[in-house]
Amino acid sequence: MSQELFNQIFHPRTVAVVGASTIDLESGWVVRLVNFGYPGRIYPVNPKASEIAGLKCYPTVRDIPEPVDLAIFNIPARLTPQAMQDCAARGVKIVHIFTAGFSETGKEEARKLEARVAEIARAGNVRVIGPNCMGVYYPAGGLTFSTTFAREAGTVSLVSQSGAGATRFVYLANDRHIYFSKVVSYGNALDLDAPDFLEYLAEDSETAIITCYIEGVRNGRRFMAAVKRCLQWKPVIIMKAGLTESGAGAAASHTASLAGSALVWDAFFRQTGAIRVDSLEEMADVVMALLRMKHVGGRRVGIVGRGGGIGVIATDVCERAGLKVPPFLPETQRQLEAISPEAGITVRNPVESAREIAGTADFYHRGLKIVDTDPQIDFIITHIAADIYGGRRQDMQTELLKAAEALAVTVPALTKPLAVVLYAGEHLETFSAMLRARDLLLKAGIAVYPSMEAAARAVAIFRRARDIEKNA
Amino acid sequence: MSQELFNQIFHPRTVAVVGASTIDLESGWVVRLVNFGYPGRIYPVNPKASEIAGLKCYPTVRDIPEPVDLAIFNIPARLTPQAMQDCAARGVKIVHIFTAGFSETGKEEARKLEARVAEIARAGNVRVIGPNCMGVYYPAGGLTFSTTFAREAGTVSLVSQSGAGATRFVYLANDRHIYFSKVVSYGNALDLDAPDFLEYLAEDSETAIITCYIEGVRNGRRFMAAVKRCLQWKPVIIMKAGLTESGAGAAASHTASLAGSALVWDAFFRQTGAIRVDSLEEMADVVMALLRMKHVGGRRVGIVGRGGGIGVIATDVCERAGLKVPPFLPETQRQLEAISPEAGITVRNPVESAREIAGTADFYHRGLKIVDTDPQIDFIITHIAADIYGGRRQDMQTELLKAAEALAVTVPALTKPLAVVLYAGEHLETFSAMLRARDLLLKAGIAVYPSMEAAARAVAIFRRARDIEKNA
Repeated sequence: MSQELFNQIFHPRTVAVVGASTIDLESGWVVRLVNFGYPGRIYPVNPKASEIAGLKCYPTVRDIPEPVDLAIFNIPARLTPQAMQDCAARGVKIVHIFTAGFSETGKEEARKLEARVAEIARAGNVRVIGPNCMGVYYPAGGLTFSTTFAREAGTVSLVSQSGAGATRFVYLANDRHIYFSKVVSYGNALDLDAPDFLEYLAEDSETAIITCYIEGVRNGRRFMAAVKRCLQWKPVIIMKAGLTESGAGAAASHTASLAGSALVWDAFFRQTGAIRVDSLEEMADVVMALLRMKHVGGRRVGIVGRGGGIGVIATDVCERAGLKVPPFLPETQRQLEAISPEAGITVRNPVESAREIAGTADFYHRGLKIVDTDPQIDFIITHIAADIYGGRRQDMQTELLKAAEALAVTVPALTKPLAVVLYAGEHLETFSAMLRARDLLLKAGIAVYPSMEAAARAVAIFRRARDIEKNA
Repeated sequence: MSQELFNQIFHPRTVAVVGASTIDLESGWVVRLVNFGYPGRIYPVNPKASEIAGLKCYPTVRDIPEPVDLAIFNIPARLTPQAMQDCAARGVKIVHIFTAGFSETGKEEARKLEARVAEIARAGNVRVIGPNCMGVYYPAGGLTFSTTFAREAGTVSLVSQSGAGATRFVYLANDRHIYFSKVVSYGNALDLDAPDFLEYLAEDSETAIITCYIEGVRNGRRFMAAVKRCLQWKPVIIMKAGLTESGAGAAASHTASLAGSALVWDAFFRQTGAIRVDSLEEMADVVMALLRMKHVGGRRVGIVGRGGGIGVIATDVCERAGLKVPPFLPETQRQLEAISPEAGITVRNPVESAREIAGTADFYHRGLKIVDTDPQIDFIITHIAADIYGGRRQDMQTELLKAAEALAVTVPALTKPLAVVLYAGEHLETFSAMLRARDLLLKAGIAVYPSMEAAARAVAIFRRARDIEKNA
């Protein structure tokens, strides 16, 4: 696959929006590109309008006065063959067919329509993304399929068969200050398919981590080769959907995919060493670990946080995820006990930071470095139970922020990686207070998770991949 | 165990707060009871004060001018023997020892102190809750250990070895409009233990569902007998913590409990038919199912919601949880297709309500009854992806509420149970919009879950218990 093609996909000098909407301006493709800061020229195409969002509108792509790099189709499926003819005639390089209603419907005539469009594109040297997909989000180049995605660019890329899945993942990641290099939602893939994008991203200097949402692949061998090529340079995290019987049926009516058997995919993950995740949330969790916990040297965790039942549950969660929670050395326990002002505080591992949120910041200042030096552990997870002592009262919210500030100051001086769990429950004020604390921690470069389950699983998954790598 | 004892626990005519705080009034026990509307008389006890929160303060319990039903100890551990002597002398019926620093510390002297207090209580005919626990939350009687718990009373009761665990569960439940009859956090249980409370709740007419957080039990046979007695009348949901090796260690230093082996507990659940859950969140999820989804007749689910990858993922999640997602009858699919205005909408099961939130309310009005009549399914889960199309824009938030209103109107007319999944992600405005929609649904008596995982697992767990019951 040529670099030139992908340069045109991610850096089009001109974009035509075929079927530019005259009514739904705010969420239409034209205004979306304008608002997101796309720096090239935009050509709305719609025979029923002369101007859209202040831009001159053209009846067909053929009427556009300069070469078109990328055309986005936002027209009914039945009109796509003619529009593709026009694109071929005008020398358009790439068409992104947003339109749905093709082979994914399972209907013979729709399948034929898709084949006809593919044939016209091939004959006319037009490369195609889609149909039935959201296309490209490339913040560095001002391209997006949602104006509420972050403008910040990052080093994570996503190749997704699903547009809604890609949208969910980008929002989730952005809210955790994880930013993207390139996101492609490619849908039915009548031309460009997952391996094409993966091969490109393998060499892409703007991409450090590759994530992938897959329902099914056409050519397993090619997909595997592409993933292996990526893995020579960077980690690849894959969520494979449609692995259950009914899930496979749902995948078939979504992107006309053959989902493949669970056994085949088990073998795929074993052979490639790609990191397997079971949900989009888990994918975001693992990315967080790769970005901010990459120096975790083993599975032994020191748990710091509210004790009592909350500490017992946290311990169970870590062990179930495949981590170890060994007791601290007696000397560590003695030192922790010495700095604790409260009776009945546990110090064995987990260690109780404080009964109330008010003592938490103080513990972070004095206790974290004691935990950090214990040779029994490889990393630290500290959990702040914002739900039971952080958020419902104004003074508690202030203390929660103080605890976060204490972490921002103390964590950089630790020798071992540390992740923070901020659990907020489902109360609005608590959730809002938690987000403020999270923002502060994320800005300080600290890994933050919404639950002990998420943190423990993410580190365990990432460690497992590391161990496989080492043994390979 | 006599009913009279529990009448005194839950309906004390007088409460003494031993070690009433003169400084931290707002979160102290005295002001807590006053603010929560406790209707009896409160006697602060503190030799260093003459008045606390406008109430006359007494130097010791002996000086209180009338009989005391319940005394709450908020004093250092070393002062508890003397205070217990005073209670025995004054004829106090029940003492709740909030104080920690006893056998849970693992220290010999602390263990001896606990034994001494137990001895004094026994000799003086004083029954004890605790030490190292939060005591009682009984909203109908104005008793609580947190003023931010709901005043509303409900039919769920909780017996919890952990105070923080109880607090987390009550908040989580309250936020989902699940209200409590009686909650007891009993800690180290030097006298009253889980079986005592369970035996009482078995017969308690105010309790319809019993939940239980357990780290370890002293007398397995007695615990099992108590749970079986409850199960004759009402469902019992148990979260057993400390089942992993390190978790058992953490439990020992929390409530001095012997956690017991995983095998023993497997057998316990098999033999009793109690419902087993792995987290406090799952406990709340199952309670929601018992309260609002109890007529689910089997495991076959019809999924309604955003399609595409989101629908494929939802299908996988349901099947993994042990539910079935069979295709709708061809006639159902035809009818669903006939009402759909959009191309490429899937109707096989899952059925796509609408691409955008704007079409969702309309689908609920027209499509739900079609799904409801399909004989292939036993119940419906509809998921609203507030994260990708509900919350980030003001108009979307309005549409989200419209969708909830449509459900409030249409669900009562359905013949099959329906649960709603409102997934909000981690964005404040989306979360806030989700909570408004949830409130509306909960008020309409509809079961609501925060994720497809939570909904699917809750119904699967509840159905499994139902099936075991039937075969027993």
